Amino acid sequence: MPFIRIDALHADSERLEALGRAVHEAMIATIGIPVDDRFQVLTSHDGSRSTLRHDPSFLGIDHDDMVFVAITLRGGRTPEQKKALYRRIADLAHQYAGVEPRNVLITLTENEPLDWSFGNGVAQYAEQEPVR
Amino acid sequence: MPFIRIDALHADSERLEALGRAVHEAMIATIGIPVDDRFQVLTSHDGSRSTLRHDPSFLGIDHDDMVFVAITLRGGRTPEQKKALYRRIADLAHQYAGVEPRNVLITLTENEPLDWSFGNGVAQYAEQEPVR
Amino acid sequence: MPFIRIDALHADSERLEALGRAVHEAMIATIGIPVDDRFQVLTSHDGSRSTLRHDPSFLGIDHDDMVFVAITLRGGRTPEQKKALYRRIADLAHQYAGVEPRNVLITLTENEPLDWSFGNGVAQYAEQEPVR
Repeated sequence: MPFIRIDALHADSERLEALGRAVHEAMIATIGIPVDDRFQVLTSHDGSRSTLRHDPSFLGIDHDDMVFVAITLRGGRTPEQKKALYRRIADLAHQYAGVEPRNVLITLTENEPLDWSFGNGVAQYAEQEPVR
Repeated sequence: MPFIRIDALHADSERLEALGRAVHEAMIATIGIPVDDRFQVLTSHDGSRSTLRHDPSFLGIDHDDMVFVAITLRGGRTPEQKKALYRRIADLAHQYAGVEPRNVLITLTENEPLDWSFGNGVAQYAEQEPVR
Repeated sequence: MPFIRIDALHADSERLEALGRAVHEAMIATIGIPVDDRFQVLTSHDGSRSTLRHDPSFLGIDHDDMVFVAITLRGGRTPEQKKALYRRIADLAHQYAGVEPRNVLITLTENEPLDWSFGNGVAQYAEQEPVR
C-alpha cells in the first residue's frame, strides 16, 4: 500500500533501481508490508529543467547529493516502526546505491484505509482497521 | 480543488490527455467537484531515468501496465463517494485511454479548507466547512 | 522541514530557480522556517509527455500559465500564518519569476514531527511537539 516517490539528481537507471529496492526492502523489514506491495515512482533529475534544491547544512547535517523519499501510507505505525524504517532506508540506500545516509531525506504522509484502490476500481482496504 | 498527479509509463500525449480527462470527469460525476475545478500534473515516464515500479500480483491483482493516480483533496467525502470515485476512474480510464481497470492505482490524501490557495495569494476556502 | 514540489510549464532553469527562491523566502518570512531548511523538487513540463492541465476560470480567476506549489509540512500553523504564506508566495513568484499572482496554486499537506527524517536515518523531530 505505500505509494512512494523517490527523487534523485543525476542518477542513472541502475542507481534509481537500487534506491527503489532499498526503500522497498526497508519497508518489508520494518513496517511489515507484503513483499509484493510495491508502488514507486522513481525520477532522476537533470539539474536544469528538472532539479532538486536543498541547503547544504540543515540541522548541522552536511548534505551534498541528496535523495528525497516521499512515502504515502496508511496511518497507524508506531514511533518505533517509523524510526526503524528511517534507519533501514538510510542503511540500504548506502549499501545498494552508494548514497551517504546523511543525504537521505524521508517524509511520511498518512491516510486512511478507504483512501486506497489497488485496481479494478475497488477500495480493497475499505473494511480494514487502520494499521496498528 | 483536488490537485492530481497522474503517472504512467510510455504514455503518449493523447493517452495522458485521456487519463486526465477520465479522472476529471469521474470526480465531477461522483464527488461533485465543479467542472472547472481541474488542476493536474500528467507525467509519462520513459522507463529509464524516470520510471514506475510495481509488483505484478499484489492482492492477487494481475498488474502489468500500471497507472498511478494520486489525489489531494479536502477531507469529508463519504465512503460511498470514495468507492464510487474509484469505480468511475477505473471505468473511464478504460473507456478513454484503454487502460485495464486492474492496472489503476488510486490514492487519496485529505487536507483542510485552509490548505488551499487557487490564485492571488488568497485562501479562497478559508471560511468554508470541510466537505460533507 | 517543508518538502516542496513546484511544477511549471515551459519554465527555463532561471525561472525554476526564481520560483524555488520565492517559495523558500516566503516560508522563512511567514511561517518561521530556518533559512537552511530547504528541500525542493522543481520540475518544468514540456507540454507533451509531461504537462499540466487546468481550467482557465475556476472561482472566477482567469488562469493561464499556472504554477503548482505543493507543500508538505508539519501541522500546527495558524490560519493567519497560512494566509500570510499564500500572499507572500504569490507576491514573490511575481517579483522573482514574473508569474502572475492569479496563476499560483498552492496546496498544503500536514503531517507530524515523527514523519520526518532529514538524514542519517534519524527522526530528528521525534521528540518535538507539533508546531504551534
